[in-house]
Amino acid sequence: MYRVHGVLASGNCYKVRLALEQLGFPYQWREVDLLGGETRDRTFLALNPNGKVPVIELPDGERLTESNAILCYLAKDSPLLPERRLEWARVMSWLFFEQYSHEPYIATARFRVRFMGESVAGNGEVESKLGPGNRALALMNAHLEQHTFLVAERYTIADIALFAYTHVAPEGGFDLTPYPALSVWLDRVRAQPGFVPMYG
Amino acid sequence: MYRVHGVLASGNCYKVRLALEQLGFPYQWREVDLLGGETRDRTFLALNPNGKVPVIELPDGERLTESNAILCYLAKDSPLLPERRLEWARVMSWLFFEQYSHEPYIATARFRVRFMGESVAGNGEVESKLGPGNRALALMNAHLEQHTFLVAERYTIADIALFAYTHVAPEGGFDLTPYPALSVWLDRVRAQPGFVPMYG
Repeated sequence: MYRVHGVLASGNCYKVRLALEQLGFPYQWREVDLLGGETRDRTFLALNPNGKVPVIELPDGERLTESNAILCYLAKDSPLLPERRLEWARVMSWLFFEQYSHEPYIATARFRVRFMGESVAGNGEVESKLGPGNRALALMNAHLEQHTFLVAERYTIADIALFAYTHVAPEGGFDLTPYPALSVWLDRVRAQPGFVPMYG
Repeated sequence: MYRVHGVLASGNCYKVRLALEQLGFPYQWREVDLLGGETRDRTFLALNPNGKVPVIELPDGERLTESNAILCYLAKDSPLLPERRLEWARVMSWLFFEQYSHEPYIATARFRVRFMGESVAGNGEVESKLGPGNRALALMNAHLEQHTFLVAERYTIADIALFAYTHVAPEGGFDLTPYPALSVWLDRVRAQPGFVPMYG
């Protein structure tokens, strides 16, 4: 059985939970006390020297880190990851886009506003994330005006990875109403078999 | 033939060039005028709406973006990407580590110091990157104290991706002397068949 060390309200951890549910893999969830500083303690750093959730333990005791790499591992040879070389690489392209051009703005703004109780207006740290975050949302919206899903017109781990923080972007001060194709896609993801909502 | 739209002095673009050389794939290189603003013009945004280099055009005219996704594409079914599920996923884990925990600090500090001519000392923007960048280097060094390469004790695209900005980290104000295992690994990468140095 898989064992996940994660935080239920974290989008990066939710990606892993959603994939596990949709692939029908049994797993245990161990909730990590992120706000209490657990990811910086010695025991946790032995699990992941980079001090980040999620971490997955495989049935043989091996460990894997980085949410999107865990998605790759879980989805390998499943319908959630296309086999054709270009489609497969385009899934990877969206996963790297998510970690470089989306998550650092949208997830971190959400963390400050939702979990640290910071305001958006007049908060330079959060406001500086709105421009790049909206560029990421606009890019997705333009793509989804012409596609049902991000890659290959089918539901893949690219959709799981991007859904995670996009659907809670309003919690970080982002307005999704200028992105109608994005909103339709969010509902399309929610309608997938085995979908489970994010907790918290 | 592949066609790369890139910048020779960019580590993200160098990754692609190094992989193409080591895999023996013929390619054309089109140098993009990054400092002249080309990545923000309409023609370039039609190539990559995210306005970033590198972009690769495949022999059939399809395009792919995100340096690490291009590495995945090029290395698929080659010795540079292990097939075993866990090793394969560990390569992915390092690629995401590179884009989230390494490149945003080490590459951007280098860009400011080397290409924008900014100083390190007394420069808050650059100095703020030294802490997280050094944490990434220390994590790699600790791993490489016990391993010859990042994954599976063999040279993979994980090594290509991490070599790109690590070996030029001193250009961004990073001192590599506290990381002896990292320096040995850099030389091990340089000794690989087909290795080509970064230009510029």
